[in-house]
Amino acid sequence: TRTIKLAVIPGDGIGPEVIEQANRVLDAVLAGGEVELARTEFTLGADRFLATGETLPPAEQQAIAEHDAILFGAVGGVPGDARLKHANIERGLLLKLRFDFEHYANVRPCTLFPGVESALRDPGAVDFLVVREGTEGPYAGNGGTLRGGTPNEVATEVSVNTAFGVERVVRYAFEAAKARPRKKLTWVHKTNVLVYAGSMWQRIVGAVSSEYPEIAVDYMHVDAATIHMVQDPSRFDVIVTDNLFGDILTDVAGAIGGGIGLAASGNINPDGTFPSMFEPVHGSAPDIAGQQKADPTAAILSAALLLDHLGLTTEGDRVRDAVRSDLAARGSAPRPTMAIGDAVIAAIPARV
Amino acid sequence: TRTIKLAVIPGDGIGPEVIEQANRVLDAVLAGGEVELARTEFTLGADRFLATGETLPPAEQQAIAEHDAILFGAVGGVPGDARLKHANIERGLLLKLRFDFEHYANVRPCTLFPGVESALRDPGAVDFLVVREGTEGPYAGNGGTLRGGTPNEVATEVSVNTAFGVERVVRYAFEAAKARPRKKLTWVHKTNVLVYAGSMWQRIVGAVSSEYPEIAVDYMHVDAATIHMVQDPSRFDVIVTDNLFGDILTDVAGAIGGGIGLAASGNINPDGTFPSMFEPVHGSAPDIAGQQKADPTAAILSAALLLDHLGLTTEGDRVRDAVRSDLAARGSAPRPTMAIGDAVIAAIPARV
Ligand SMILES: CC(C)[C@H](C(=O)O)[C@@H](O)C(=O)O
Ligand SMILES: CC(C)[C@H](C(=O)O)[C@@H](O)C(=O)O
Repeated sequence: TRTIKLAVIPGDGIGPEVIEQANRVLDAVLAGGEVELARTEFTLGADRFLATGETLPPAEQQAIAEHDAILFGAVGGVPGDARLKHANIERGLLLKLRFDFEHYANVRPCTLFPGVESALRDPGAVDFLVVREGTEGPYAGNGGTLRGGTPNEVATEVSVNTAFGVERVVRYAFEAAKARPRKKLTWVHKTNVLVYAGSMWQRIVGAVSSEYPEIAVDYMHVDAATIHMVQDPSRFDVIVTDNLFGDILTDVAGAIGGGIGLAASGNINPDGTFPSMFEPVHGSAPDIAGQQKADPTAAILSAALLLDHLGLTTEGDRVRDAVRSDLAARGSAPRPTMAIGDAVIAAIPARV
Repeated sequence: TRTIKLAVIPGDGIGPEVIEQANRVLDAVLAGGEVELARTEFTLGADRFLATGETLPPAEQQAIAEHDAILFGAVGGVPGDARLKHANIERGLLLKLRFDFEHYANVRPCTLFPGVESALRDPGAVDFLVVREGTEGPYAGNGGTLRGGTPNEVATEVSVNTAFGVERVVRYAFEAAKARPRKKLTWVHKTNVLVYAGSMWQRIVGAVSSEYPEIAVDYMHVDAATIHMVQDPSRFDVIVTDNLFGDILTDVAGAIGGGIGLAASGNINPDGTFPSMFEPVHGSAPDIAGQQKADPTAAILSAALLLDHLGLTTEGDRVRDAVRSDLAARGSAPRPTMAIGDAVIAAIPARV
């Protein structure tokens, strides 16, 4: 028996509900096999901050680091909650984990499953993967405020990009493209405006691409990429882009791929120096929390990515097959959170 | 007779073709009236750069400044043209005009006209206006390269935001919302990550909103805004956002509003210290240039915004009515550039 140490951070709002189902699916797919999960739950997020004033105490971060992988729900309190004004759970917890644990490849697959209604009239065959840089760029947290709160305030945000950081994610994306049948990579930036970062990205994509002659590479400005994603998403195979563009493009992808309730992600540390973290792309949606209204499919598909990452690709495929047949049978219309978990579990194909 | 001095910059690629039709429509709608146009054409863009090495000579910029308004086509050479590698026509010409002429309110209406097929399955009633900040933010051009071309390269891009710059565009957006029936303003940023610029935007939107109690204000993160735009665009009335988010959101808007061939824009200097500039949102599309394949509707609707800006709102409405009836009759399927110009001209309602 192989024991996998899994850190679970359900978080706030709908996080616990969707993670509950993801955990049930993990148990079901692993039942009777050689792998067992040893879970540690970490109570972190806005609720924890409100209760204790803590965001991510170093000892807990250290404890999380000692796991093999992280399953993450969603964090964030009720918008406008004055007690959270200076909390910034996103930067202090979610982004801190991504940055400190070197989650440089934030992978977000977008597949339109049969039975799912896209927001698009004629989506075609949607099946692409966005590889979003996860540890630098506009998310670096650099910047500041001069003469804050006055009519002369100047606020800056510095996008910090390194050849080291860009090259490693670009390489990851080329490898991802190589492992897929279509062998296409689209890199997205805004080189005509952001000339410093843009030209470095261009140089590095060019250099790495010479090692991958079998991959067809093209470039799009981020604005044009959103148009293509809305008008003809089937043209994409693998997309690689920076942290902020990736944030935006993957929400567009979520919207066209049947909704953010289906969008999974993995924050991958490909070097294995820290645990990778798997989370639905959606947020904590406090307005519907605790009502069994949230779709756990994104969390379940994130758990499938977690299985893949741990080398359990057969189990990952069994989860995706179960989701696929559930969606084919029942579509993506709203159902209670637990009912979707039940249906996916019932649909898990037997081991072969 | 009132004479309006109009600077015309057709630019590259499809720019000249679409501007030709916009000019014909302007002549037609003003024919027999009290207003006449005195046009000066400026040959600027990638072709000019290739011919002379010049992007925007100061004397020409000065000459343009002495006009009442600018009609702009599109600029940019063939992607990958090595001779343009260090040209950056976008920064040196288009953005330079926007910045130097204080085009701080970049207005981009998104209307789904009857007869136009949206990329969305069920778009609902789409009729919103994006007010994009045009003179600062990530477009400031600040940033740099350290150890360029080496494995240790660091490239930065600095988003520079000022209370002065944010307040003036936010005020403009509130005024725009006030002039519209729904009286709704959505401001878009990424306050949970870009905390310095985000909190300044938040403070300023809050302060200005207290002067506009009749306007309902809400906030969205930019990623969520793209989802809403794809899934339920009818919820938007006026959107105000920064330069980069506005660039991206208006391309999403273009895609859902029937395509970028219909998307008009005005780069407005509301203080009148420099001429405002009107341009289709689309680019120069060198791949289809000179083939009468480009849709001039975006350029024609930009000319309508130009008329509005000059106080000729009746004429602006007549142009929009003509476009509306052309689209209702013939849809937005491809037609030759000139044919669309002819059809719009034929559809211009008589003066009343
Ligand atoms: C919550 C937020 C910080 C986060 C991000 O911007 O990365 C989210 O939008 C996401 O896409 O995972
Ligand atoms: C050409 C480019 C510099 C420009 C921009 O980014 O503003 C364009 O995309 C636009 O939206 O007008």
